Amino acid sequence: VLYDRYSESREEVAGRIAAERGAALIPPFDDPRIIAGQGTVGLEIAAQAAAMDARLDALIVNASGGGLVAGCALALAAESPETRIYSAEPAGLDDLKRSLETGERVRNDPSARSFCDALLAPTPGEITLPIHRRLLAGGFAVGDDETADAMATAFDVLKLVIEPGGACSLAAVLSGKCEIRGRTVAVVASGGNVDRETFVRALTRCAPA
Amino acid sequence: VLYDRYSESREEVAGRIAAERGAALIPPFDDPRIIAGQGTVGLEIAAQAAAMDARLDALIVNASGGGLVAGCALALAAESPETRIYSAEPAGLDDLKRSLETGERVRNDPSARSFCDALLAPTPGEITLPIHRRLLAGGFAVGDDETADAMATAFDVLKLVIEPGGACSLAAVLSGKCEIRGRTVAVVASGGNVDRETFVRALTRCAPA
Repeated sequence: VLYDRYSESREEVAGRIAAERGAALIPPFDDPRIIAGQGTVGLEIAAQAAAMDARLDALIVNASGGGLVAGCALALAAESPETRIYSAEPAGLDDLKRSLETGERVRNDPSARSFCDALLAPTPGEITLPIHRRLLAGGFAVGDDETADAMATAFDVLKLVIEPGGACSLAAVLSGKCEIRGRTVAVVASGGNVDRETFVRALTRCAPA
Repeated sequence: VLYDRYSESREEVAGRIAAERGAALIPPFDDPRIIAGQGTVGLEIAAQAAAMDARLDALIVNASGGGLVAGCALALAAESPETRIYSAEPAGLDDLKRSLETGERVRNDPSARSFCDALLAPTPGEITLPIHRRLLAGGFAVGDDETADAMATAFDVLKLVIEPGGACSLAAVLSGKCEIRGRTVAVVASGGNVDRETFVRALTRCAPA
């Protein structure tokens, strides 16, 4: 079932379908069980850091509604409480960063656009934002050019396909927005759901001559 | 130190440098220790198959001088002797396949070309070919178009960057040259050393409209 992202609400569309069919609605972020499940990413990161004898100074997680970063923050609050947790979002769609800065639940300008199509939720969740307020050290907002460069670097160096919304955390590091000198910083590359055309644009934007 | 692949021998170039400097020459395939080291790929495959309770019917390994496939064949002869081992090479540079078929150590036509730049050795090794003869069930030769399609499929489905010479085994399966219905077949994707331009060409060759 397709919908228009800019004139319709996917929550309303899905809620209507679930009511008609007696189906269960599984929300993408604003649910305690979803947040707990996504938090297992944080548990894995803590376990991998411990296996490497690394003290993790910071973790950056891509955020849309913020379930993944909320779950990771909860996991690391228990497993690695000295780690500072940050969100990463596309510039202009950085509702979480601005919500943390202002203390209000901020909405994105409806005219804001980004090719990070996994990170376009209009505002942080009702359940996630209180967790963010309590546990996050702040947020990073990265431009689409910076994210495209991060995708290309992941191709060059990591040999991984990362989707735009999955590369914002890496972009926060590579763009210098997150200081990493002398620090151990983890980033979450959350997904490879990108079509060939978008990936080719990211690779060729800054291709060496 | 650069050399011309078509008019010079890298073995001669490297041998001269090693002699001048008193350096150790580490050959890419024709050495028992290199073959043994590359064979650890086969040990890992056998361990992963056992962990999945899978009976491995076949394994396909990309081949240039054939060290990797020789090592894997030795490992599986011990760990999974029922597995049939195949090489995969670019069509026209399938010296190993033809050497297995004819029983002679065949050389490629010097005019043969492929974008699989990791798989251009002119003939199987002196140490590797007797191992191939003893342990391989045969070889596959795949066209560059088939290999490019395999790279694109690996991007789409596996989210992995595979270099041309690393994708021939997968191409042997996806092109239908290796029958997989009802069988459990492993392929080795041996490397992601591909530049952006070559990768973009592979992705756009057959890009859906």
